[in-house]
Amino acid sequence: MRMRIAISVMLVVLVLAAGSSSAAAAGKWRKRVHAPCKRLVFYFHDILYNGHNAKNATAAIVGSPNWGNRTILAGQNHFGDMVVFDDPITMDNNLHSPAVGRAQGFYLYDKKDIFTAWLGFSFVFNSTEHKGSINFAGADPLMNKTRDISVIGGTGDFFMARGVATLSTDAFEGEVYFRLCVDIKLYECW
Amino acid sequence: MRMRIAISVMLVVLVLAAGSSSAAAAGKWRKRVHAPCKRLVFYFHDILYNGHNAKNATAAIVGSPNWGNRTILAGQNHFGDMVVFDDPITMDNNLHSPAVGRAQGFYLYDKKDIFTAWLGFSFVFNSTEHKGSINFAGADPLMNKTRDISVIGGTGDFFMARGVATLSTDAFEGEVYFRLCVDIKLYECW
Amino acid sequence: MRMRIAISVMLVVLVLAAGSSSAAAAGKWRKRVHAPCKRLVFYFHDILYNGHNAKNATAAIVGSPNWGNRTILAGQNHFGDMVVFDDPITMDNNLHSPAVGRAQGFYLYDKKDIFTAWLGFSFVFNSTEHKGSINFAGADPLMNKTRDISVIGGTGDFFMARGVATLSTDAFEGEVYFRLCVDIKLYECW
Repeated sequence: MRMRIAISVMLVVLVLAAGSSSAAAAGKWRKRVHAPCKRLVFYFHDILYNGHNAKNATAAIVGSPNWGNRTILAGQNHFGDMVVFDDPITMDNNLHSPAVGRAQGFYLYDKKDIFTAWLGFSFVFNSTEHKGSINFAGADPLMNKTRDISVIGGTGDFFMARGVATLSTDAFEGEVYFRLCVDIKLYECW
Repeated sequence: MRMRIAISVMLVVLVLAAGSSSAAAAGKWRKRVHAPCKRLVFYFHDILYNGHNAKNATAAIVGSPNWGNRTILAGQNHFGDMVVFDDPITMDNNLHSPAVGRAQGFYLYDKKDIFTAWLGFSFVFNSTEHKGSINFAGADPLMNKTRDISVIGGTGDFFMARGVATLSTDAFEGEVYFRLCVDIKLYECW
Repeated sequence: MRMRIAISVMLVVLVLAAGSSSAAAAGKWRKRVHAPCKRLVFYFHDILYNGHNAKNATAAIVGSPNWGNRTILAGQNHFGDMVVFDDPITMDNNLHSPAVGRAQGFYLYDKKDIFTAWLGFSFVFNSTEHKGSINFAGADPLMNKTRDISVIGGTGDFFMARGVATLSTDAFEGEVYFRLCVDIKLYECW
């Protein structure tokens, strides 16, 4: 009898374990317990082209609303500016630390009455530490201390990854430089 | 012997059950049974800047092909026009209803011989009802009555969400205003 | 006793079965065994507008950095150029083969010192063979022989698809034409 109970308990545990990936069945239960299967923290550094910094710039305005241009970020909280970037990724918050990868993609400012952005980009790694890419998309209401975007996929070491990345602005200097801290929490790790 | 058969049958059943979240194993089976774990219907309203409506506009052309500009949508079914938007989301189809969130991101027109768009955007909520974001991407062949795009991720209340959103054009007025109905069906709800 | 062993074996099977979709629990195990649940190979053909090929062009520059324009790809490895496309998809590498669908979306060049792109696009099918769409996003370091991007979602026949697509440049002609081979490997097939 004790044996049967033990087996029943085990089966329940197994069902719950299976449920942890059957979201439809066990949504609420998961909410309480999910923990990242992988966690990585990086910084990336964006130096925007402003007409005078061609050599150092890692990003450039490539689209703007009719009232803007491609050298100076537009009025109305830069609404409509679209920026392409190839930013160095570092392990710490020092722009001059060795880059461990590149953050590549675009962001756009999409609100007239406050700074808010939308991001589509990848972290691209090709080092002894990491090979492969992590792909991100999501809204970045950058006046909030932290904001969450989605990890929508990955390749190589990050094959099929999904998760959430928490962004925080670690520093900025006028309209030329900003540094984001990206706390990547993967919840699906193949 | 009978026992072994019984166990084998059980294993098959179990494998199928596990298969309900192991898509590779049980794809066809799932096709018959999947139902959303969460369903939400919203409307969003896009008012495109046309040179005369700066105050009300929620969207602006920020990129265009060489034969276009950023005030008037280009010829050839607007091919190449890229638009950034921050549109109010409402529960019903009334532009003047209280906004429950913002639809933020971009769309682009990508076909010369018919109206077709591609969308990358987020629904951003910060109300008592919903907190968090839902991220979308996909093709929008907007002359079709309904068209499906992907929910590629979510944050907050929509943590790790995946699903399909069915878009339909609820109304439009010339080249300035359109209203989309978005029927969001999540099939992965953590 | 034999019974207990049988049950233990079952439990192991169950754990493995559950693990196949519980990435967090069995990441390493999966890494060794994952195989696509669906595999598709296509080609798509991009003819970039250059001021002289309006009739045949399937793509156009819609954004560029300040030092570029929308007729000629910019210097510095086209850094900052954003291109919208509606490209035919074929089963083989012949531009003149019947199109089985359209590749629609955008790419941008995002590195100053080497050719590298970022892609957001969909494969849109509406044939007897396939109906629905596959959505892609990711970095495309196009000087590499092969590079992986993410399948971030799908609709219709590709409902809820996830996977990896391996791109390779099958041909290119100057700055006007290129042909990509796309080897789509889905690992989640509902």
